[in-house]
Amino acid sequence: MTVGTEWLVDAHGCRPDALRDLATVRALLELLVVRYELRVVGESAWHKFPGEGGVTGLYLLTESHLAVHTYPEHGIATVNLYCCRWGTRAAPEFPWEATFAAALGATQVDVRTLPRGTRGMTA
Amino acid sequence: MTVGTEWLVDAHGCRPDALRDLATVRALLELLVVRYELRVVGESAWHKFPGEGGVTGLYLLTESHLAVHTYPEHGIATVNLYCCRWGTRAAPEFPWEATFAAALGATQVDVRTLPRGTRGMTA
Repeated sequence: MTVGTEWLVDAHGCRPDALRDLATVRALLELLVVRYELRVVGESAWHKFPGEGGVTGLYLLTESHLAVHTYPEHGIATVNLYCCRWGTRAAPEFPWEATFAAALGATQVDVRTLPRGTRGMTA
Repeated sequence: MTVGTEWLVDAHGCRPDALRDLATVRALLELLVVRYELRVVGESAWHKFPGEGGVTGLYLLTESHLAVHTYPEHGIATVNLYCCRWGTRAAPEFPWEATFAAALGATQVDVRTLPRGTRGMTA
C-alpha cells in the first residue's frame, strides 16, 4: 500500500536576492501548480521573514500539499511536493534542475522521491 | 550544510473514524506543536474531504512546516514535520508510536528522519 509520492527537492547555489523575493519564489511554485495540474484548496499561505530572511509558502492541495522554504544565507531553497494522485503509477517527469536554475540561479538540485504510506519505511 | 531536519511519519492500522474526525486529528497535531514548542505563523489551515474522506492540516511555522493527511480507507495517517531549529544538533525525542497509538489507534508507526539542504541527497 502506497498512498502517495513525496518529492523532496533541495536546490543549492541559488541567488540570495531571488530567495528573499516572495514574488520570485511564488512564481516558481505557481509553475509547479500549473505543470502538475495541482488543485489548490483555499489560498496559499506565504510568509516573508524580516530583513535578510527568506520566504515560506504552503499550498493545501486536494492531492496533499506543496511547500517551499528558502535560506538566502546559504543559497538554498527546499521544496516538498506530496501528491497522492498517481498512486503507484509513474508521475510525470518535471525538469527540476532547469526550472530551479532559471528561476533562482540554482547550480545543483538534489531530488529525493519517496513513497508515503508504505509499511516498513524507516530509513 | 544542513538547514533542517524532516520527519516523515506514516502511521498504519488507525481507526477510520478517528482519521475522519478533524477535531481528533487536530488535537494530535496541537500536541506536536506544544511538545516541540513550535511557533505557528498565522492560523493553521484545515480541510475535511467529503463523505468518507480524510482530513488535511497545514501549519506554517517560523521553524518551517507541519502537515498531516489521513486516509481512512487505508487506516493511514501521514505527518511531515520540517524543522530548521536544531540544525545539526539532535532534536528532542518524541514518542511517535505511543502518541499515534493513543490518538488514532495506530498499530505500526514508521518514522524517517531526513536532513534537508545537505548536498548530494538524491536517494
